[in-house]
Amino acid sequence: MSELRLLALASPDEVTPGHDLVTMFLEALQRANDDLHTRDLVVVTSKIVAKAEGRVVSFDGTEEHKLALVEQESVRVLRRRGSLRITETPHGFINANAGVDLSNTAEHTAVLLPLDPDRSARRFRAEVARRTGVDVAVLVTDTFGRVWRQGVTDVALGAAGLRPLLDLRGTHDAHGRLLEATEVAIADEIAGAANLVLHKAAGTPFALVRGLDESFFGEGSVSENLVRRRRDDLFR
Amino acid sequence: MSELRLLALASPDEVTPGHDLVTMFLEALQRANDDLHTRDLVVVTSKIVAKAEGRVVSFDGTEEHKLALVEQESVRVLRRRGSLRITETPHGFINANAGVDLSNTAEHTAVLLPLDPDRSARRFRAEVARRTGVDVAVLVTDTFGRVWRQGVTDVALGAAGLRPLLDLRGTHDAHGRLLEATEVAIADEIAGAANLVLHKAAGTPFALVRGLDESFFGEGSVSENLVRRRRDDLFR
Repeated sequence: MSELRLLALASPDEVTPGHDLVTMFLEALQRANDDLHTRDLVVVTSKIVAKAEGRVVSFDGTEEHKLALVEQESVRVLRRRGSLRITETPHGFINANAGVDLSNTAEHTAVLLPLDPDRSARRFRAEVARRTGVDVAVLVTDTFGRVWRQGVTDVALGAAGLRPLLDLRGTHDAHGRLLEATEVAIADEIAGAANLVLHKAAGTPFALVRGLDESFFGEGSVSENLVRRRRDDLFR
Repeated sequence: MSELRLLALASPDEVTPGHDLVTMFLEALQRANDDLHTRDLVVVTSKIVAKAEGRVVSFDGTEEHKLALVEQESVRVLRRRGSLRITETPHGFINANAGVDLSNTAEHTAVLLPLDPDRSARRFRAEVARRTGVDVAVLVTDTFGRVWRQGVTDVALGAAGLRPLLDLRGTHDAHGRLLEATEVAIADEIAGAANLVLHKAAGTPFALVRGLDESFFGEGSVSENLVRRRRDDLFR
């Protein structure tokens, strides 16, 4: 029987540019009296990645400054309503306000998205492997809205060691017929699942996911596998 | 430390109209040598709900018939590309082909969406409580695409005993400032999480979710809490 477990890992660390997130993670794991297993997956929230990578800018607290930052972080604005902007970022993400983050940031600062979250995930993964000898997968996650449903969910911005899109095309159903349209965005489903155990206001920037199917692991990136290209987009 | 567990429950049953899904679920749970705990959440895939509720129609296998069914199940078609229709259903869901399902169905049939998945979830929940005395939450889930990201994820079509949207507005961050825009669509995050353990082609129509935060439980429905009204939609 397939069982999946998700565990939140808390840390007292304040993350500043240059902070060693792998040490922070391994210490959090140790405090939880746990250790790493092959095919564990580590979820790292995008905010601490951005802070550690120095993607922090000063922010004067005004609406004008916020909108200027959003503009600067966007390649395109799709919609405007009040102070909300639906934007396309240089990564190809479509989200609110280009991911410019004004909560849980140091006074007078804003946190931007990591420049290359796939690379951030790959580096975190390689460093975990170097320090522990264990091969884990890594997701860098953030909170996005959806077009046609209320509320936000966490999605993957970066991935390493995981196939973000699980291709079930060619799989047969219980009646022997081919399954339709079934490339499952498992990276986003894992990101959302992890958000169920994270209590961001309370300082839990990591989640450990254990029990994912072997077939989920492999090569891929959010940039290549999850970002929809403009030519395939029916609504841009 | 917050820990979440998800368990897939298999069943050999073929679901036909009138099938007793609660018995099917309780038998699946027994085969897994498990029993229900207060604040467990049961995920039921929309397809078996639809089949049990008789939402099955004959289908002659032609493209024309498929498009006619999609049209019939839609209140509006937002986009057309090839044989793909992006539709609005009477529930207010925006999805591909109005949820008309041609895989894992009996020969020459198509399965439609349940008419009122919130009601289906409430009935399942009430019947579980009546038969076991245990108060669980229930989600009815299905697979939807997304506008700006590749791949499908599972989302909640119906909910009972759960607050589908967790309102964190008014919550303070670690620096004492109010969190922004944080109504989290936990029902969709749970639906996606459950999909990670379900292997639909292999006959696992249920998942059991254990360890959800106490604050997640309460009143609400997908229809009221997750469906975005047209007036709030920037892209319809």
